[in-house]
Amino acid sequence: MKKIAVLLALSFLLLTAYKPFKTLFLSAQNKSVYGLVIHGGAGYIKNLPPEKEKKYREKLNEALEAGYVVLEKGGKAEDAVVAAITILEDSPLFNAGKGSVLNHLGQVEMDASIMRGYDLNAGAVAGVHHVKNPILAAKAVMEKSKHVMLSCGGADQYAKEMGLDVMPQEYFILPRRTEQLKKIQEKNNKNTENSSLKKHGTVGCVALDKQGNIAAGTSTGGLMNKKFGRIGDSPIIGAGTYANNSTSGISCTGTGEYFIRTLAAHTVSDLMEFQKADLQTAMKKALEKVENLGGDGGMIGMDKNGKVFWIFNTEGMFRAMKTSSGEKKIQMYK
Amino acid sequence: MKKIAVLLALSFLLLTAYKPFKTLFLSAQNKSVYGLVIHGGAGYIKNLPPEKEKKYREKLNEALEAGYVVLEKGGKAEDAVVAAITILEDSPLFNAGKGSVLNHLGQVEMDASIMRGYDLNAGAVAGVHHVKNPILAAKAVMEKSKHVMLSCGGADQYAKEMGLDVMPQEYFILPRRTEQLKKIQEKNNKNTENSSLKKHGTVGCVALDKQGNIAAGTSTGGLMNKKFGRIGDSPIIGAGTYANNSTSGISCTGTGEYFIRTLAAHTVSDLMEFQKADLQTAMKKALEKVENLGGDGGMIGMDKNGKVFWIFNTEGMFRAMKTSSGEKKIQMYK
Repeated sequence: MKKIAVLLALSFLLLTAYKPFKTLFLSAQNKSVYGLVIHGGAGYIKNLPPEKEKKYREKLNEALEAGYVVLEKGGKAEDAVVAAITILEDSPLFNAGKGSVLNHLGQVEMDASIMRGYDLNAGAVAGVHHVKNPILAAKAVMEKSKHVMLSCGGADQYAKEMGLDVMPQEYFILPRRTEQLKKIQEKNNKNTENSSLKKHGTVGCVALDKQGNIAAGTSTGGLMNKKFGRIGDSPIIGAGTYANNSTSGISCTGTGEYFIRTLAAHTVSDLMEFQKADLQTAMKKALEKVENLGGDGGMIGMDKNGKVFWIFNTEGMFRAMKTSSGEKKIQMYK
Repeated sequence: MKKIAVLLALSFLLLTAYKPFKTLFLSAQNKSVYGLVIHGGAGYIKNLPPEKEKKYREKLNEALEAGYVVLEKGGKAEDAVVAAITILEDSPLFNAGKGSVLNHLGQVEMDASIMRGYDLNAGAVAGVHHVKNPILAAKAVMEKSKHVMLSCGGADQYAKEMGLDVMPQEYFILPRRTEQLKKIQEKNNKNTENSSLKKHGTVGCVALDKQGNIAAGTSTGGLMNKKFGRIGDSPIIGAGTYANNSTSGISCTGTGEYFIRTLAAHTVSDLMEFQKADLQTAMKKALEKVENLGGDGGMIGMDKNGKVFWIFNTEGMFRAMKTSSGEKKIQMYK
């Protein structure tokens, strides 16, 4: 009887210690935790009219569910990120893809990036004028190119070569944006470089799939009235976007310059890796660094265990999350 | 007698504890430590012919001394960085400014960035075609623009508006580079995207001035035969360049994509900030992360106390350093 007990104990130990079995146990343990978190930008978002609020809520829900379905079916985190972000890019409600803000020349110039946490591979495009969905171009750069970042004409051309949809500028430019630019330029006709810093409609998504892989992506039209050629934090790996399976995935929105100077997304990951900080503590500290320089905005994050956190120092942030543990939230205000 | 001793001890304590005095002592203590470290790229640098080696040594010395003079006269760290880097950009020996490598269309497309450690301000240009000294354009973006990063046509235009020298493409393109491109494209005419990853002639500089401020800068023509519009790590704050007065300044060279994915320069600073690692340990760990992904290259660093360290995993790296403690080195090989 004693021998059988010892044998049983030994085989249990072997079973749990042997790597393939261990992996099996670990993945089984994590199997039920997957999900995603999205944002549609932070800024002066306060007391929206009910019909406008409803529109935002519906579009956030559509993007959230589109990403969730991918994960539910066992799809990859990066595919969920792309599923959610393309919907937000196609919607004129957000400052990404169709409906992007205009640079000081009245053009749409879009930035996007994506990163996956299991091999730290990443892709980004900056200053594209014609790709319908910049996040798809970023994903193509990540998956099919040896480069991480392509810009301007070269990025548009690459997207075309990859068979992605390209559109004329008119597709992206909304009359409402032309009006906004006109007003801003009339106001600050002496300082045409920097304005409208209070509006950040950037979109982003972080997802954790059933395999335990994290991916993060961000897409934006940048800052209204920005200088032709200006690159913000959204296409900068480590600034607006970062993903690392051993820590977390992060997507940021805000005055990009401050997120670049502090490497906000990468700081979260480093705090978790080097100081063993939890997601929440790390994100608070990273946003503090942005704030200390005078920057505003927000970020969404998801750690390797499926824990979601969001934070912003603006009036509001369009945000939503859904995980397989049954949690679902769609929020806008503080 | 005892009373006098107590009084003396008390006044000494007050003197050392009172902040203005403390600062005085500290700055006096640090006053004598200033200096700079430069690199001219890492790669297959081995057994150069004596006359070629002499040329490199002389140019590195010229850049080093030009930066050192700025510091000696009490100038700013960022001015020393620019003084050293412009000399390397103007030299056809290095892959930056004149003599930059060519993209797959046979054009020169240059990237540069600069950051100062006391306020974390930074500036960068990517994909410029005409600015004679991209590092000067990066400095103008840092000092005179609300943006951190400008790219392509917009960056060239901005440099022109700032009164910087612009040149036609012919100024930058050397016959030797056209030859190299031809050879590479003939070799890999099936894969024109990625090649010549073993040559990295990027240039960079980190300086610490008499005021205790750190600055770092990097300038490059990127990768030979790179895709039109490709952006490497050199103009990415946190990837190829980072400076923080509370930790260190870093400039990298190598296969930029890996330095972007690991945020190599920012990782050094974070290891020093979050793990209290010293410069050497932090740089070793950061390059390890690059290596783990399959990347090669090197980096130079200088901490807030004037300690210099360099590291590379290639055959060699053009590098030189000089500090006010009397140390001076110019090296190329392992």
